[in-house]
Amino acid sequence: MKISIVGSGNVATHLHRALESKAAVCLINPRTFEKFPSDADVVLIAVKDDAIADVASKLPETSAVIAHTSGSVPIEALASHASNYGVFYPLQTFSKKVNLKYSEIPVFLEASSPEAFAMLSKAAGLFTSDIREADSESRRKLHLASVFACNFTNAMIGIGADILADTGIDFSALLPLLRQTVSKLENLSPANAQTGPAIRRDQNVIERHLQMLEGSPAIAGIYSLITHYIQS
Amino acid sequence: MKISIVGSGNVATHLHRALESKAAVCLINPRTFEKFPSDADVVLIAVKDDAIADVASKLPETSAVIAHTSGSVPIEALASHASNYGVFYPLQTFSKKVNLKYSEIPVFLEASSPEAFAMLSKAAGLFTSDIREADSESRRKLHLASVFACNFTNAMIGIGADILADTGIDFSALLPLLRQTVSKLENLSPANAQTGPAIRRDQNVIERHLQMLEGSPAIAGIYSLITHYIQS
Repeated sequence: MKISIVGSGNVATHLHRALESKAAVCLINPRTFEKFPSDADVVLIAVKDDAIADVASKLPETSAVIAHTSGSVPIEALASHASNYGVFYPLQTFSKKVNLKYSEIPVFLEASSPEAFAMLSKAAGLFTSDIREADSESRRKLHLASVFACNFTNAMIGIGADILADTGIDFSALLPLLRQTVSKLENLSPANAQTGPAIRRDQNVIERHLQMLEGSPAIAGIYSLITHYIQS
Repeated sequence: MKISIVGSGNVATHLHRALESKAAVCLINPRTFEKFPSDADVVLIAVKDDAIADVASKLPETSAVIAHTSGSVPIEALASHASNYGVFYPLQTFSKKVNLKYSEIPVFLEASSPEAFAMLSKAAGLFTSDIREADSESRRKLHLASVFACNFTNAMIGIGADILADTGIDFSALLPLLRQTVSKLENLSPANAQTGPAIRRDQNVIERHLQMLEGSPAIAGIYSLITHYIQS
């Protein structure tokens, strides 16, 4: 299979790593299409959301299935630039420096035709067994869900790390707790897994915590808002 | 070693499971001390924060080291009720239905004397190799940090699950992303691991997300506040 990946960021880098030993893969800089092979089966556009349509409009002539990799851009963004097109959305948090087990990444596909879907599915199947279908509406909800579940979760852990910083207790002390916070969710819903002073309505502890945060009004505001949310 | 655990909640249940094959352990209902053994080495009071001093005051005569298991209650809460006392704080999220690997749980100790510390350390060492010292001030910060890192993290994941609910995409699709969100933190600080539209300052995506949340003002408020926090 011949796959071209257009991009230079985290997603492009990881798709290249995931596929390079499984297919003939070209990694193409989105500012120059010099090395663009005309005979690719699939072209994956892994660039910033706002640049997708522009990159698609500049692609050299190809019969490949053109797919973008964004959670929040509809499939229609490619409709006027390709005859066979789709979306190839790997649901994972990608950092260049961090290695990943690609076989566990769910890839959500959408395509302009059953043939295009089959081709994208074949490409995804090179590195993962978790291939799912999602239309643009479901995919943008999935992306929003992952902002809460991944990005905001990381921000909460970051606040925890900042609070620990002046105690001399190393951040690594939190890791078993963090692993277990996620492991629990293999068997319990988040609602049933909720613990802590908010869900126990332990008002004494909540008030002491807010006192401790008096010097950090932004953090105190987050504490209050999420505590109320958990209790509602 | 003889250990009595006073309590009937999540922490008491798990300490009993962690220790029952390693020591002579009594699980004692905090409302009746009928079966309280007078010759225990350690008594662990695993009850709600507000009940600790009351339970300590009602304990039958014993030469054991008396310790509570709370993150936010100072060691002094036991000072007038025991001559050898301390704190035995296991940093983990405990649900009765969820099994745990006890050997990975960090236990934070504080004690009224080196002898009491050694005794609590011996008890913790029966199930974990991660024994640390923390005074009451550090421990209450650690507890606050874990509210953000565990309880609020779970709440964020819960919002993600709610957003997914009407797409037909199963919550389990988020699990690889959640595992990776935590795994990254073995090598990166949360600040360096942060990804998503907030840190990229992708204002188009942020505005679309807020539009999607127009029917859920509480969730939209959380989205805005955490997005601003990540950007600041």
